[in-house]
Amino acid sequence: MEVTRQNFKDTLKTVCSAVEEADFLAIDGEFSGISDGPNVSALTNGLDTPEQRYAKLKKHSMDFLLFQFGLCTFKYDQEKSKYIIKPFNFYVFPKPFNRTSPDLKFICQSSSIDFLASQGFDFNKVFCNGIPYLNQDEEVQLREQSEERRNQQANGVGTPSFISPSSKGPAHVPEEHKDFINRVIGKVEALLTNSEKTLDLEPCTGFQRKLIYQTLNWKFSKGLHVETVETEKKERYIQVIKVDDEERKRREQQKREREQEELNDAVGFSRVIHAISKSGKLVVGHNMLLDVMHTIHQFYCPLPEDLQDFKEVTMCVFPRLLDTKLMASTQPFKEMITNTSLAELEKQVKEAPFKSPQVETAEGFHSYDTAQEQLHEAGYDAYITGLCFISMANYLGSFLTPPKAYISAHSKVVEPFFNKLFLMRIIDIPYLNLTGPDLQPKRDHVLFVTFPKEWKTSDLYQLFSAFGNIQVSWLDDTSAFVSLSQTDQVQIAVNTSRYAESYRIQTYAEYIKGKQQDKEKLGQTPKSWGEDGWLKPHYTSASTAATFGYHKGLRKRSISPAEGEQGGDAPITDGWSQYSFPDATGSKKMKLDDKSGHAEAIESKTSEGWLKTGDAPDPAGSSPPPEDEGSPEGNDAEGTVPWQQAPAVHGRKGQKKKKQQKPKGPEPTTSLFEVPEVW
Amino acid sequence: MEVTRQNFKDTLKTVCSAVEEADFLAIDGEFSGISDGPNVSALTNGLDTPEQRYAKLKKHSMDFLLFQFGLCTFKYDQEKSKYIIKPFNFYVFPKPFNRTSPDLKFICQSSSIDFLASQGFDFNKVFCNGIPYLNQDEEVQLREQSEERRNQQANGVGTPSFISPSSKGPAHVPEEHKDFINRVIGKVEALLTNSEKTLDLEPCTGFQRKLIYQTLNWKFSKGLHVETVETEKKERYIQVIKVDDEERKRREQQKREREQEELNDAVGFSRVIHAISKSGKLVVGHNMLLDVMHTIHQFYCPLPEDLQDFKEVTMCVFPRLLDTKLMASTQPFKEMITNTSLAELEKQVKEAPFKSPQVETAEGFHSYDTAQEQLHEAGYDAYITGLCFISMANYLGSFLTPPKAYISAHSKVVEPFFNKLFLMRIIDIPYLNLTGPDLQPKRDHVLFVTFPKEWKTSDLYQLFSAFGNIQVSWLDDTSAFVSLSQTDQVQIAVNTSRYAESYRIQTYAEYIKGKQQDKEKLGQTPKSWGEDGWLKPHYTSASTAATFGYHKGLRKRSISPAEGEQGGDAPITDGWSQYSFPDATGSKKMKLDDKSGHAEAIESKTSEGWLKTGDAPDPAGSSPPPEDEGSPEGNDAEGTVPWQQAPAVHGRKGQKKKKQQKPKGPEPTTSLFEVPEVW
Repeated sequence: MEVTRQNFKDTLKTVCSAVEEADFLAIDGEFSGISDGPNVSALTNGLDTPEQRYAKLKKHSMDFLLFQFGLCTFKYDQEKSKYIIKPFNFYVFPKPFNRTSPDLKFICQSSSIDFLASQGFDFNKVFCNGIPYLNQDEEVQLREQSEERRNQQANGVGTPSFISPSSKGPAHVPEEHKDFINRVIGKVEALLTNSEKTLDLEPCTGFQRKLIYQTLNWKFSKGLHVETVETEKKERYIQVIKVDDEERKRREQQKREREQEELNDAVGFSRVIHAISKSGKLVVGHNMLLDVMHTIHQFYCPLPEDLQDFKEVTMCVFPRLLDTKLMASTQPFKEMITNTSLAELEKQVKEAPFKSPQVETAEGFHSYDTAQEQLHEAGYDAYITGLCFISMANYLGSFLTPPKAYISAHSKVVEPFFNKLFLMRIIDIPYLNLTGPDLQPKRDHVLFVTFPKEWKTSDLYQLFSAFGNIQVSWLDDTSAFVSLSQTDQVQIAVNTSRYAESYRIQTYAEYIKGKQQDKEKLGQTPKSWGEDGWLKPHYTSASTAATFGYHKGLRKRSISPAEGEQGGDAPITDGWSQYSFPDATGSKKMKLDDKSGHAEAIESKTSEGWLKTGDAPDPAGSSPPPEDEGSPEGNDAEGTVPWQQAPAVHGRKGQKKKKQQKPKGPEPTTSLFEVPEVW
Repeated sequence: MEVTRQNFKDTLKTVCSAVEEADFLAIDGEFSGISDGPNVSALTNGLDTPEQRYAKLKKHSMDFLLFQFGLCTFKYDQEKSKYIIKPFNFYVFPKPFNRTSPDLKFICQSSSIDFLASQGFDFNKVFCNGIPYLNQDEEVQLREQSEERRNQQANGVGTPSFISPSSKGPAHVPEEHKDFINRVIGKVEALLTNSEKTLDLEPCTGFQRKLIYQTLNWKFSKGLHVETVETEKKERYIQVIKVDDEERKRREQQKREREQEELNDAVGFSRVIHAISKSGKLVVGHNMLLDVMHTIHQFYCPLPEDLQDFKEVTMCVFPRLLDTKLMASTQPFKEMITNTSLAELEKQVKEAPFKSPQVETAEGFHSYDTAQEQLHEAGYDAYITGLCFISMANYLGSFLTPPKAYISAHSKVVEPFFNKLFLMRIIDIPYLNLTGPDLQPKRDHVLFVTFPKEWKTSDLYQLFSAFGNIQVSWLDDTSAFVSLSQTDQVQIAVNTSRYAESYRIQTYAEYIKGKQQDKEKLGQTPKSWGEDGWLKPHYTSASTAATFGYHKGLRKRSISPAEGEQGGDAPITDGWSQYSFPDATGSKKMKLDDKSGHAEAIESKTSEGWLKTGDAPDPAGSSPPPEDEGSPEGNDAEGTVPWQQAPAVHGRKGQKKKKQQKPKGPEPTTSLFEVPEVW
């Protein structure tokens, strides 16, 4: 269903009930661009830390506009054994609510726009009929402004933008407008004596309207209702209506109500996100980090500076997320799915050993045909993302004893994938862990190299030719990470560079330390909405909390206990078992929650077990410390069916092993997670 | 005529011949926004210097996109005594030429977009079918890249983006792609033995294509032509064609030619601007400073830092400009036209004493109906701008002896308005003088005040309550200019503030001095095209000059001598006679042209004469110094008919005098130019 400004109000109820009845939701966003800074490969450096990646995306991607939001609701019909879906395709545009509301600017990237154009994207639907929206701060601001204006009008001061020191007395009318104002007075005097009820003055400038308001307010304090009316073509004129005191009040009351309704309309699309958030349903997306960031940024609040704060806000807005790209890149799917782009994934999960789920489009909704690609329409992308999730989840069910053909979104089988968002192109950190600390791979084999900007990759190969195979991750024109295959050569490389003049080599640890020192020097200054209409980083957790229920102290929503399959969990070799973690002596301290005092020990470190879910079942209790690997979900599962028994997986497993070793070097100290190349 | 990417190539000839045959051209642009920084009132401070205004517009307006360009050509048909017009409406979009060409970003301002949407603007025409363009630097860059690629291909290295240190040997194929590459080799080997001529490989990733190129180049160095083909849906696949040596060469030649043509297509809309520029015709616009800046910025070169350099570039691109807003705001029109917005001006010049010109739309062109407003379509706006110019010019003809009903664009009567662009909302500098130094009004009565950001206008009124009438021009949250009505009170105000803690008062002279010192401290660092696709200020006059004939030493194009009316010029009291100028002792030195050595003595200072044209008739000769008011155009004209004799003007003249005096204060030292309020 296409939803624009035209049918949004009529559709909102349908949307909300679809969300309420759904088993899970799939979402997708289309943006006006990806990066306003470095090119994508610099934006997504292979050795970014999660903090760096978040900071880069926040800095270089948030000024683009999320202008199409796809939502597809999936409800499983037990009787029919099929999913009933309701796909929505929302066109979103920050139409300014009035002339005092923020005039948002956003960036368009011509390649992105051109790409969408080539896919048949309808820009007129966005720009002419996009649904407006307000984030929480804006909504509060506008409601306050409206309140203020009402109070001022009650005091007879006219519209607030026109208040000047002289407004309490008779208006000071500049010479050149005197004729004009006198003509208006004449007309109004005529209105008061003739039988007409309404007088429409001719369109005029804002300054002239100010003079009219002030003059009429002064000269005719009773018996008139004066209002500015805007035509479809944005011309403004003043309407003067002859009223008795009662009607004047009634009209003012009507005007207030109209204003309130307009304000609700202005909150617009944000109400859909509020409904999704409130439902607490599992929200599925494909490579969804940017979608989540944009959604929060546009419809909730400016993104916080700090990654940890972002995780907290995210968990309040979307308490359960699942990223199908991360799922497809994780065992057991990792071995089976060579290309995890949405289009390719969708094709692959149609083939054995996967099964396409039975799906029926609810009545009154547009029925998508996956044979006829409509990729890059957000509603369609959300739809096939949901299909991919179902196929992969059901595939997991085939390993249960007894096997299950249908795995629900609430099943324990899919829980390990909750709240882990795929990190594009980071070599050794596959996901952002929303419910706890992120993986901290050892990067002892990595060097940070600075050099003249004329250098190319081949110069780096040349420089390190003595050290065997290297891997280069460019940072900018004059710096890159160089990963050696042997950690013990790192110090040799650093030493040999000591007297070099044109380049400089540091260990990764030195680099990180320098970064942290720079950061401490700079400090962090909170910013707020600029007068210029750009959304400035401004993280007001308190005010935001009041409106959408986010609260530092009550950060985690409890997730309802998993239904079904409790007896069928199986440990999975997840492919990330060789990670180096911060050592148990505590180089990384547990961050204590400032209110409840319980440790945020959501642990992604696993050896052979499931990716553990981050939500401690008892928020008051203390989670196990990170070195404790024996969490209940991981090892206490029954019906252990090692993935190796699945023939499709088994055959490839051998290949995989080979792949993870560097061709010529000795055993690598860390194994590299394979990140597919397609965005 | 609507021109998009679809019909651009077929239309270009029509456009060029319309420009060539025209008597004058009118232009208009529509942008994706106005200001990405301060709100418009801060962007256009009433006391900006021309340098400041230029710097602000450059900084805060150039990242928007000029996406609709209106051109209307006007050719006078002597026999029919009417103008034949050809209106064009170009949709313009920076579609990236290829993946290595700059991926331009531009800003959209939601209020501007919403406004255009409300006027029925078709965004799909821009984003889906906009004509691409390149500026001079981009064109040069792309031609060089294309050349380089060709050389590399001749050396058998494949496409340049894929060059790696190992590309000279057999491709290193990673384990996971070996199957894929082996399948490709199998298919190609089959092609070489079977009867097929062409092999279309399946779409694959860029990395896979790189491997294919390298492998095929290594394994099958002869007998094959390999090419990447892109589908409409942007999928790329490789086509392998079996060829003998001769056909291979022919195909490569074809490919080169195709590339050249594609490159010419990529220059796209810039060719229209080149044609306009080359024609040297008078180009008329309404409030055209932003149009001119955007046009040069998008289609010629990034705007220079320095205003003087901008003037020089502008005079090369558009040797003759006329701004109808400036014309309408100047004597004798100033007295007759109360609202100089395009829509209002168009209405007013339809009424007496003006006459609507006879106009006929050329065959095959869309005929606009001015009764049915289509305002804010660039082609229509250009059209009515041209009409306004004709009506005003012809009105000037009525004062000649004998009166003339038709005044040509080459007439001396309109020359005083050449190359002076309206400056929005500057109180005392009505125009930017493109052909010489700008007016330098005395601002002795102006104070620069800084204060806490809580202050409002009323606080300033309060603060200066002892000084009579004041005028406040806000700079930002914490500073404003305050103009006093009496210059002798300036020092008193400064003195009284000496011990103030919350605010600070400086004279205008002190403020300007401080600004200059700040600027000197900072210096000026030239920037260039960022890798990130934002156009950086980068002014390479030399390279630019080579391509479009701009040359510092040959800055001014000579304007062909005015035709007709030479005997009928009349001096005009221009309303700006009371300006204070830099004194004759030389506080402002004449800037000498670095080559010819003649002074840039284009003088806007007039007492009762015409606004003088800036072009010295003899570029080798020395123009009169600024204190010489007796220029030939100004005072040596024959048939002097003072404007005061026109009754319509006369009646208002008295009013005007009154208006120019501050209501209560003594004689002002400078008279304020009345700038209309409508943008």
